[in-house]
Amino acid sequence: MSDKRTEIAELGEFGLIDKIQANARVRSATTLKAIGDDAAVIKNDNSRLTLLSSDMLLEGVHFDLSYVPLHHLGYKSVAANVSDIAAMNGVPKQILVNVGLSNRFSVEAVEALYQGINAACESYNIDLVGGDTTSSASGLVLSVTIYGEVDEEKVAYRSGASKNQILCVSGDLGGALIGLQVLEREKEVFLTNPEMEPQLDDYQYIVQRQLKPEARMDIVHELAELQVVPTAMIDVSDGLASEIFHLCKHSEAGVRIYEDKLPIDKQTYDTAVEFKLDPITSVLNGGEDYELLFTISQDDFAKLEKHPDIHFIGEVLSKDDGASIVTKGGNSVPLQAQGWKHFNV
Amino acid sequence: MSDKRTEIAELGEFGLIDKIQANARVRSATTLKAIGDDAAVIKNDNSRLTLLSSDMLLEGVHFDLSYVPLHHLGYKSVAANVSDIAAMNGVPKQILVNVGLSNRFSVEAVEALYQGINAACESYNIDLVGGDTTSSASGLVLSVTIYGEVDEEKVAYRSGASKNQILCVSGDLGGALIGLQVLEREKEVFLTNPEMEPQLDDYQYIVQRQLKPEARMDIVHELAELQVVPTAMIDVSDGLASEIFHLCKHSEAGVRIYEDKLPIDKQTYDTAVEFKLDPITSVLNGGEDYELLFTISQDDFAKLEKHPDIHFIGEVLSKDDGASIVTKGGNSVPLQAQGWKHFNV
Repeated sequence: MSDKRTEIAELGEFGLIDKIQANARVRSATTLKAIGDDAAVIKNDNSRLTLLSSDMLLEGVHFDLSYVPLHHLGYKSVAANVSDIAAMNGVPKQILVNVGLSNRFSVEAVEALYQGINAACESYNIDLVGGDTTSSASGLVLSVTIYGEVDEEKVAYRSGASKNQILCVSGDLGGALIGLQVLEREKEVFLTNPEMEPQLDDYQYIVQRQLKPEARMDIVHELAELQVVPTAMIDVSDGLASEIFHLCKHSEAGVRIYEDKLPIDKQTYDTAVEFKLDPITSVLNGGEDYELLFTISQDDFAKLEKHPDIHFIGEVLSKDDGASIVTKGGNSVPLQAQGWKHFNV
Repeated sequence: MSDKRTEIAELGEFGLIDKIQANARVRSATTLKAIGDDAAVIKNDNSRLTLLSSDMLLEGVHFDLSYVPLHHLGYKSVAANVSDIAAMNGVPKQILVNVGLSNRFSVEAVEALYQGINAACESYNIDLVGGDTTSSASGLVLSVTIYGEVDEEKVAYRSGASKNQILCVSGDLGGALIGLQVLEREKEVFLTNPEMEPQLDDYQYIVQRQLKPEARMDIVHELAELQVVPTAMIDVSDGLASEIFHLCKHSEAGVRIYEDKLPIDKQTYDTAVEFKLDPITSVLNGGEDYELLFTISQDDFAKLEKHPDIHFIGEVLSKDDGASIVTKGGNSVPLQAQGWKHFNV
């Protein structure tokens, strides 16, 4: 190691991943996709591909146990991984969970965490097959790895979008971010006056979006029933704009989206206004919604046109066109991504 | 969650795992082995089984960066996972690495870590296919998941040992533990007098055993060449005695081992004596040697008899016989396991 010291914040998370990826050689012919998509893709001796993905959640970075119940945390940690398999158009099968625990945590706390993990396994029909439990010097550490499968002709990489295809997104966006604002406000109120009961009744939908999001396996199954294979797909974990940039980069394409097509729930909209936040910025940059962003060929549009929960938000352009958003006023402006930064300066 | 608080130390790591396992339902017919062996075992549509295993390493719990170079840590984190695949008699194929980093770490530090990870991928012919990088509030967090394969008729569970079979172990034991004593002594010396150069020349083998252990894939390949399939196998990560108890428990068997058959390197022996530690206790309870402990049928003994690095340390008995060790003096005493406790009271 040289004496030079470069701060990780100078590279950023994606810069760091690029550096790691550049030094990782692929040796096995069965490794179809290594670092760089929602999941790794491995070829078996049959027509089903293996999907592998892993995420780590650290207390104080990714969650705050003062308002996140442990069973919700367990559920969400699994759902977030299932979402990565969904984003490959695959089906989740097994998970491994590594847990690090400081002595602040009791056996009952661990049981609550695993209640959530097991509930998610039940919801998504997957098996908890292993992992590691260990002590931690500081707080709770959760690392979940998921194994899934997809038919070879159905796998949806980030790289398949091409000109004139239609950009679609499931569900609605921004709710998880605004739900987090509500929870943080209630935490402040509680810290100031512990006698106060949290006021969450008016915010149930968005608080649920933050605390107990669902991976959109229903969309994956419906696409299969309708015989639609997305040309490219990614899940919205970091924010819509950020994910659009990933799709554009991997597909070497441009994108135009329309502000008036972006799906937002009324509760998200109203609460954003209450917090003096721009609702559209929340939709574009709010993370953790775990919806699916995907592209389809024009031929498949008729099959999805009447789907109540799939929204057609834009079209794929040439790479040179870049990524832009057409405002309600009809102006086209360049899209900007803030996303979720792990490594702040 | 009830108001009852049970300390995790009361249950211990294995008690905690039993509790987690008891609540985990297996839903998929392709999940042949979930929690409870060195790796999970998944059936594909062909004769090869999928193996999955995952480990987490936390700074201040599993490693001390004041004497563990980051590239060695990277190497060891992969080797430890490869060892779990070896313990199933399988071949490792791909890994995913999750890393949490506090701002103490520079890009150059991360590069050193990945140098070690990539060197291990090179040694064991595996691909780094994914993972997560994130910031951490405190120190370095490493979580490695490994994917491997094994022919259906070759998989070695912990549960296959039966009466009259022979208990074997590869390599030599106790070195990693005694190497750690040396490193900790040098750290103390350094803290007292930072001008002192570390004195490691006389301890190269055991320091290497601690800092850069190798998974015994060579033994797995040699067993295949000799057409020996172990009836049961486990890797020695927690200590020989502890692993013997795991084999006995899963196989519902007893074991008798012989003190004079236990393999110990001269440097391990001499240094243990220097530290006023009992060499045999180091062999029985020292962890992190990553050797393979396995059982074979009597019929296979002739094939392995002349192998220079496989030692025949005992025999499998009935469950009622329990686990015992015959001392050099000819006395039979019950075996006791200390192992590595993650959750101390």
